[in-house]
Amino acid sequence: MEKKAFVISIGDELLSGRRLNRDLQLISRFLAVRGIKVAGEMIVPDEEEAIKRALDHALSSADIVITTGGLGPTHDDKTRWVAAEYFNRELEYRDSLMEFVRKRLNAFEMEYIENIHRNYALVPQGFDHHYNEVGIAPAMSAKIEHNGMEKLVVLLPGPPREVEHLLSKLDYLFKDYSQGVCREFTIKTFGIPEVDITKLLKDKNFDAFNSLSILPSPYGVQLVLKKCGGDESEVQKWIDERVKFIEWILGKRYIYGYGDDTLEKVVGELLKQKCLRIATAESCTGGLVANLITDVPGSSDYFWGSVVAYSNEIKEQILGIPEPLIRHFGAVSEPVALMMAEGVRRKFGVEVGISTTGIAGPTGGTPQKPVGTVYMGISIKGRTRVILRHFSADRLGVKRLTAYTLLNELRKMLIFGEEP
Amino acid sequence: MEKKAFVISIGDELLSGRRLNRDLQLISRFLAVRGIKVAGEMIVPDEEEAIKRALDHALSSADIVITTGGLGPTHDDKTRWVAAEYFNRELEYRDSLMEFVRKRLNAFEMEYIENIHRNYALVPQGFDHHYNEVGIAPAMSAKIEHNGMEKLVVLLPGPPREVEHLLSKLDYLFKDYSQGVCREFTIKTFGIPEVDITKLLKDKNFDAFNSLSILPSPYGVQLVLKKCGGDESEVQKWIDERVKFIEWILGKRYIYGYGDDTLEKVVGELLKQKCLRIATAESCTGGLVANLITDVPGSSDYFWGSVVAYSNEIKEQILGIPEPLIRHFGAVSEPVALMMAEGVRRKFGVEVGISTTGIAGPTGGTPQKPVGTVYMGISIKGRTRVILRHFSADRLGVKRLTAYTLLNELRKMLIFGEEP
Repeated sequence: MEKKAFVISIGDELLSGRRLNRDLQLISRFLAVRGIKVAGEMIVPDEEEAIKRALDHALSSADIVITTGGLGPTHDDKTRWVAAEYFNRELEYRDSLMEFVRKRLNAFEMEYIENIHRNYALVPQGFDHHYNEVGIAPAMSAKIEHNGMEKLVVLLPGPPREVEHLLSKLDYLFKDYSQGVCREFTIKTFGIPEVDITKLLKDKNFDAFNSLSILPSPYGVQLVLKKCGGDESEVQKWIDERVKFIEWILGKRYIYGYGDDTLEKVVGELLKQKCLRIATAESCTGGLVANLITDVPGSSDYFWGSVVAYSNEIKEQILGIPEPLIRHFGAVSEPVALMMAEGVRRKFGVEVGISTTGIAGPTGGTPQKPVGTVYMGISIKGRTRVILRHFSADRLGVKRLTAYTLLNELRKMLIFGEEP
Repeated sequence: MEKKAFVISIGDELLSGRRLNRDLQLISRFLAVRGIKVAGEMIVPDEEEAIKRALDHALSSADIVITTGGLGPTHDDKTRWVAAEYFNRELEYRDSLMEFVRKRLNAFEMEYIENIHRNYALVPQGFDHHYNEVGIAPAMSAKIEHNGMEKLVVLLPGPPREVEHLLSKLDYLFKDYSQGVCREFTIKTFGIPEVDITKLLKDKNFDAFNSLSILPSPYGVQLVLKKCGGDESEVQKWIDERVKFIEWILGKRYIYGYGDDTLEKVVGELLKQKCLRIATAESCTGGLVANLITDVPGSSDYFWGSVVAYSNEIKEQILGIPEPLIRHFGAVSEPVALMMAEGVRRKFGVEVGISTTGIAGPTGGTPQKPVGTVYMGISIKGRTRVILRHFSADRLGVKRLTAYTLLNELRKMLIFGEEP
């Protein structure tokens, strides 16, 4: 039978709703591909009684109990104390753990403070500790007898990066609870709304809507296929067939990638394949396009640099846009976008130049060019294109929509050639 | 005594973690300003047993139980059925409610389907129903006797917009539980770890740790003070005094702002005040600093532009860094960071130039300059400073830590002068 896990997230700050609970997402995904279901999640404050009552509930609801948070060294961090008391164990001071913690403190250039940091080395008897190479606080785990049933209890620190790292390290703990295989596959699209995707798939009698989640967002709709079963190759085959079907319906015009792909990563790969180097000239995006491109490891192979030209003088002086052009057409115009892309390409001596000029708002709009009006330029070895869009969003939204739209148009131009 | 509420969020899709649970945030904020504390939240799937067990837990943990979700008309939507059974009530069909629901269906241009939509009009006996002018499904509420105590039970639909609307409509229900007014105030710091803040406050006998949440993050620790009471001016005075105390302890060296302030916004205000214009020369941050600065509305008043120079040729050609300097010291070095800041300041003809050069990783590190080594340069009218840091983080972490550290150092230099 499918095994169940219950997640307890510990921390006052989570209940204020001020922070996203990324941990639940990470844990759900990790367990989902192992065929383990999350039966529930409880968020509790840093209070002894609340944590104990949550443990009661979790242990009687599921086979696996995972807590996150409250493993830091301060008086707010109660998880290790409460766990010790709840499971009737002493807290042991472990030298080997302290040694590791000292190294981590060093790595963070933090001074060791005895009466605070020694708490890191305290572990309830019978619990294994697991070194945390990303943060400081170790994870802990044990198999516990509860009402005659064996339960797996895993205590994780709170920060999502640490949860992710420690889960993958602790993979082996979950092996016994895994049922057959489950596979998930994500298809990423840009430039087509959710309703159009649903309609296209329905029109072609797509047969697996029950296994498909369609996740909308202004920055691209994601399609997630999920399938479980006993036989790995059958599950994989089932998924592969549906992916092919969806690819046939939507094509590379809308599908830019899969899984963890991002537009900036896919564009980077295309540039590398074609041995093209790129530079950006940005006005309304203020450096966001360059920032996205350089988020990709290894981008220095094809990214040469960027000029963010907020002032007209800089557009003229560094990018060589003739002043009369700006005076006549305005800085937010098709000719200026074109000359910016071409100008930065020549200035940096690269094959590809891309540009943005527009009105991100909230001020600066006019009746002719309202907030959200954006021109984007692309020049590939002098083959040029300008795209005009009217985005309806706030300042940060306009910046992001511009950056992703430009990257997607460049992607299509690199794949399909001149006019996609 | 402070009254407590427990939130139960019902829905399979919430447990996948793919979606944000905005409802918790809305409910927490709504209750917080009324002096009602959220004692916990549980997310459960659309399963009868799980919902009942959650009700058990919630009713014995809190004075108020709020559920969200599961009030739609389809077979997945179980809340009204489970509530009727759990509280031992019949489901009543209410004509007045059906009339309202028909109007709402019309408003959404949805056809009435008898055997589905009549479910909307079913309400457990003794529960009041509340019309939902934003969606369709009504909210329901009742005071319930549980173990000799009176509890308020409120059933809300799931969509955040409807939760927000219905909560404000149902304000009167919470009056009896509210304890005077509550005020919250957030202080934002950078460059000092959580433990040091705690220690400093303890050393000076800070008297309100119970009302203070310390929220850590690598990009700055936030301090949130919260106080409730009968008299608004007294509460405000109490908060003001503690804020002054914390300001006295931490000072402007560590406190950069309050509430919704960001480092980029605060730096922008300082630049505007002092009539200084700024430009950035970025290597390892790849445009992130410029991107942050231009996230602030009105930044075109003081931000002139940026050069992202990933290649050495560009550092030489556009920023005028002498080639022998790069050859001798390396691109990641103190002299190059200094010349980048000074170079971009002159090139753009502005008063302030800032620069970054470092190794963001994951590749490119050497034993002398490992991944995370970053030099940051600041030039204010030729008055220069270079900061060296060794960050321990992944590529995106190094970029962000560099950007925020640089903005914070610039902030201090603008406030304190030459060498803070």
